[in-house]
Amino acid sequence: MRAPVSLPHAYKLLNHGPTVLVSAASNGQQNVMAAAWAMPLDFDPPKLAVVIAQDTFTRRLIEASQELCLSVPTNEQLELTWAVGSTSGREIDKQERFEVIYEQASLISAPLIGGCAAWLECKLYQEPSMQERYDLFIAEVVAAWADDQMFQHNTWNFEVRQTIHHLNHGTFFATGAKLQAKKIF
Amino acid sequence: MRAPVSLPHAYKLLNHGPTVLVSAASNGQQNVMAAAWAMPLDFDPPKLAVVIAQDTFTRRLIEASQELCLSVPTNEQLELTWAVGSTSGREIDKQERFEVIYEQASLISAPLIGGCAAWLECKLYQEPSMQERYDLFIAEVVAAWADDQMFQHNTWNFEVRQTIHHLNHGTFFATGAKLQAKKIF
Repeated sequence: MRAPVSLPHAYKLLNHGPTVLVSAASNGQQNVMAAAWAMPLDFDPPKLAVVIAQDTFTRRLIEASQELCLSVPTNEQLELTWAVGSTSGREIDKQERFEVIYEQASLISAPLIGGCAAWLECKLYQEPSMQERYDLFIAEVVAAWADDQMFQHNTWNFEVRQTIHHLNHGTFFATGAKLQAKKIF
Repeated sequence: MRAPVSLPHAYKLLNHGPTVLVSAASNGQQNVMAAAWAMPLDFDPPKLAVVIAQDTFTRRLIEASQELCLSVPTNEQLELTWAVGSTSGREIDKQERFEVIYEQASLISAPLIGGCAAWLECKLYQEPSMQERYDLFIAEVVAAWADDQMFQHNTWNFEVRQTIHHLNHGTFFATGAKLQAKKIF
């Protein structure tokens, strides 16, 4: 079940560096791609940075709507993640081809991707120079959600399902064992 | 043993989203901090983005030298990582206090941190506006290294030691099982 995450805790959904799905919608069209290059940028209000290549259809939808959603996929979505990251919405209908489930967001036009571990609804900051030179998009998280089995009491629980970290060519790592550092300072 | 990683493969050292140590040196001083917010930005030449808070001593050294090193710590360095990320080089000598091992880099003044899984020697891009507004630093990777037991044939091997992913307050996740997606596209 999808449960809201309060904004000051939203950074935790990305802090461990998972690969994400990036979705957007504009003018009746919607699309989703994968991005391994995403990270938090600030705590409160939560901001994030994500790299979105120039020639992607999702980027056109983001630039048109100024909104995007980051969904955090799980180990059950390996194939989906690799597939939407390796194909273009200009050429195929990813929703139909890969059975992507689009769910309605609360505050933005971009859809949430069904079956994921967490979701960050984002509004873009106007940084055309960074977008142009580095394909780097900065956005504010305006609403956040997580699966209530995987994220409980504002912390992750990866015992049943895990988030995933892309290496290359469809090789991923699951998020592994929780380790608590001893305090030596 | 530390072995060179060719620059077109350097993105793989960060692609799975590990937490890193950021080090820099200037004018006889050196320091190290931790950063969970770092990601690749381009493949070749490899570039990366890292968030470095305004009030850190390491940032002062980076701004003075225009160089920085990202070292990728392992599960054997949990305590070190949390400690150097929670204390300031303005107040304590982290090298002495936490027994940090500084090793000489090949092309930059910033030291590599001993015992890590990988190292990225970086030169800063001049982006004062991004640094000022978002604490966001863009750099080009000019040399890269990895432990030859953990990174072999340009891919990670986490069977013995793992890289780590910070959640908050000293709670980390080890990088977990390798998963190969089936190709459905």
